[in-house]
Amino acid sequence: MTDAPNRRMHLATLLQPNGHHTAGWRHPDAELGGDYDFEVYRKLAQTAERGKFDVLFLADAVGLRERETTEQLSRSPITANLEPLGLLSALSVVTSRIGLAATASTTYNEPYHVARKFATLDHLSHGRAGWNVVTSFTDGEARNFNREHHPDHKSRYSRAREFVSVVQGLWDSWDDDAFVRDKHTGRYFDPTKMNVLNHRGDHFSVRGPLNIARSPQGHPVLFQAGSSDDGLELAAATADAVYVAAQTLDEAKAYYTRLKGKVEGLGRAPSAVRILPGIQPFIGRTEQEAAEKHRALLELIHPDAGLGILSTLIGVDMSAYPLDGPVPELPVTESHRSRQKLLLDLARRDNLTVRQLYGHVCNGAGHHTVIGTAAQVADRLQHWFESGAADGFNILPPYLPAGLDDFVDHVIPELQRRGLFRTEYEGATLREHLGLDSPMRNRS
Amino acid sequence: MTDAPNRRMHLATLLQPNGHHTAGWRHPDAELGGDYDFEVYRKLAQTAERGKFDVLFLADAVGLRERETTEQLSRSPITANLEPLGLLSALSVVTSRIGLAATASTTYNEPYHVARKFATLDHLSHGRAGWNVVTSFTDGEARNFNREHHPDHKSRYSRAREFVSVVQGLWDSWDDDAFVRDKHTGRYFDPTKMNVLNHRGDHFSVRGPLNIARSPQGHPVLFQAGSSDDGLELAAATADAVYVAAQTLDEAKAYYTRLKGKVEGLGRAPSAVRILPGIQPFIGRTEQEAAEKHRALLELIHPDAGLGILSTLIGVDMSAYPLDGPVPELPVTESHRSRQKLLLDLARRDNLTVRQLYGHVCNGAGHHTVIGTAAQVADRLQHWFESGAADGFNILPPYLPAGLDDFVDHVIPELQRRGLFRTEYEGATLREHLGLDSPMRNRS
Repeated sequence: MTDAPNRRMHLATLLQPNGHHTAGWRHPDAELGGDYDFEVYRKLAQTAERGKFDVLFLADAVGLRERETTEQLSRSPITANLEPLGLLSALSVVTSRIGLAATASTTYNEPYHVARKFATLDHLSHGRAGWNVVTSFTDGEARNFNREHHPDHKSRYSRAREFVSVVQGLWDSWDDDAFVRDKHTGRYFDPTKMNVLNHRGDHFSVRGPLNIARSPQGHPVLFQAGSSDDGLELAAATADAVYVAAQTLDEAKAYYTRLKGKVEGLGRAPSAVRILPGIQPFIGRTEQEAAEKHRALLELIHPDAGLGILSTLIGVDMSAYPLDGPVPELPVTESHRSRQKLLLDLARRDNLTVRQLYGHVCNGAGHHTVIGTAAQVADRLQHWFESGAADGFNILPPYLPAGLDDFVDHVIPELQRRGLFRTEYEGATLREHLGLDSPMRNRS
Repeated sequence: MTDAPNRRMHLATLLQPNGHHTAGWRHPDAELGGDYDFEVYRKLAQTAERGKFDVLFLADAVGLRERETTEQLSRSPITANLEPLGLLSALSVVTSRIGLAATASTTYNEPYHVARKFATLDHLSHGRAGWNVVTSFTDGEARNFNREHHPDHKSRYSRAREFVSVVQGLWDSWDDDAFVRDKHTGRYFDPTKMNVLNHRGDHFSVRGPLNIARSPQGHPVLFQAGSSDDGLELAAATADAVYVAAQTLDEAKAYYTRLKGKVEGLGRAPSAVRILPGIQPFIGRTEQEAAEKHRALLELIHPDAGLGILSTLIGVDMSAYPLDGPVPELPVTESHRSRQKLLLDLARRDNLTVRQLYGHVCNGAGHHTVIGTAAQVADRLQHWFESGAADGFNILPPYLPAGLDDFVDHVIPELQRRGLFRTEYEGATLREHLGLDSPMRNRS
């Protein structure tokens, strides 16, 4: 196609050095040792930038997964990583256009620290910072922060809402032109351009101002990934972009319609929130080669790893049940309600065994998997994009670096040929990449 | 001298883009706009590395100074800066040998976050991270963290002691060789090499383990700067290196003797703690040129800036007193006791006016100022170093970048000619630069 339509996809990619698939690290092409080696991340980030991705994204948690034995934990790599804000700050030096986003929890942080860290990243990167707002919901995290159990869902979301509003208020502590630095008069900043927040709420009392100048984007981009009712409400009210796990086109469309409706209901333009379903691609020169890559990884999932991860997601210790028996009825675990229901519905629908269910979970953690040639993967993305299911995608390479290389070298050129994706960065900031309005510039 | 003595100085430098002197930003040679410009920091860090400094250091606070009016605050630059861990992470990419240290408060942080951030910096920099452990003691900071007032001195130090011990415990969460990443067996880490902290204390309950592999130094270097009794006790028990403000050689010697005695009293080798008094150098081609630089800066201190900073340090609003009258008797401010006494003793001794006292304070914030040619500055450092007052120095350039350039281009070669300072880095890590033992390597 030579006719570029007006509407173009937005693409994010989640960089986990061991890949998104639980057994990705065991793939013959996977390069190991990358968890703590900046050079590995440098190469990945530069590959993503070569692919003109809007943003690269680092996931995070503040503790190990909780329902696993040490033996189970030791079978999979997602146990430990570099603190993402430090890593993104370092990556800001070796990239120049791609957006840089990371998860930070509202449950076990203070808004003043979070506001400062992302404003700093936004300065360092000249306007490329994004914050993925999450709540923490494992006891494993709670126990690292003076608690026995994580707070309940309502309370976490009530705290999250206030947290985001405090952070946004702190980001507006200074007008854009507050720092005049006049050597002659000895005036460093204009005192009329300092804005003291004086926040007092249910969860936080934060006076401000933030001790950092307003950053290039004003407000770094807010990402969210909630699919619970509370999560959706928060996203509709505050998010600029949303990651979502959807297994099927219908699920993705339903989510898209529902969230855009809520966004409009709150008086925001539907285009103010970009919806990016996660896609785990297996790309081959032939469909058969791609299928073989996928099958090989499924077989490499160690049962301990599989059971451990399934237990964590479903909120129940699954090692008590026969591996090749049907998925049993389970007690509802309040903290895991939405994810648990998703998985049990799936097991019922497809009549899965425990082994098959963990195979499913370890294969993309609830995200949609596409297996095929570059053209077939592009077809799927185009179909979802043009069916009202997505404004773009969060690409989850199953193993690295080859999984990202394949996408950048083969799928992205195909999307570009079809006029569905940029061939060059047009803007400078992450907001510009995502086609988002800038937040109101402060008085000037 | 061609005979290099065995003992060599250690040199740190505090990088504040506007300089250490309150009026440093107004110096004709000062380059402005650097607070948020990574390129300015990159150049400064690379200059310090060219000078073979052991470590560059970033100060920090989590709020504005408290006892100043906005009008006063607006007259000096130390109000806002990049979050230092993010900045150091970025600097780790553009430097290769110099140590990278920053302040993080034990009062308004959680040990899990702090342990992770410094372990991350240690990984990113291949063993060059240092943490300057402080307690926060202004209400301006407290009010950004859900409190009206900062906790009292005893409580802050009791929390700081426990905080440091939790962080050190978390740094030992994994043996050095815990991550085996065996693709064949599907074993990612050796479960016998994970160490769960299970800390329960007066201030913190932290289960662990930290979700990051043990870092190259095992324990990043601990800096401290306390001069109160509690501060000294904490430093003697846990610090690897100590920054200290001493006006005179006698004060520096007294502090040195006292702290080394306490260190020995706790069963540690006196050489296990490096003592680095702060030195603000004014360097000229002639003594007269240096004196002229110093005088020019004193005259550039705006009275509002001077009064504001003096009030903050002394814990009392000083704008109520006549500028050119004697420094009056003041009520004891518990939270500022040690700094207040230092300043009042000085005012009595030298019969200072309020204006003269703020001139003194803004000129190096209680640190020793040396004014002269490069040889004269080197003489002073050598004299202190050889008189049992210092293991090295923390160099505080009054304005930047020229103040650092002068030291690196003129004083360091002089120290090197005298055999007092390295001509090349010999080790790879900050611990090695400082000649410190590595902490016990974990089981292997």
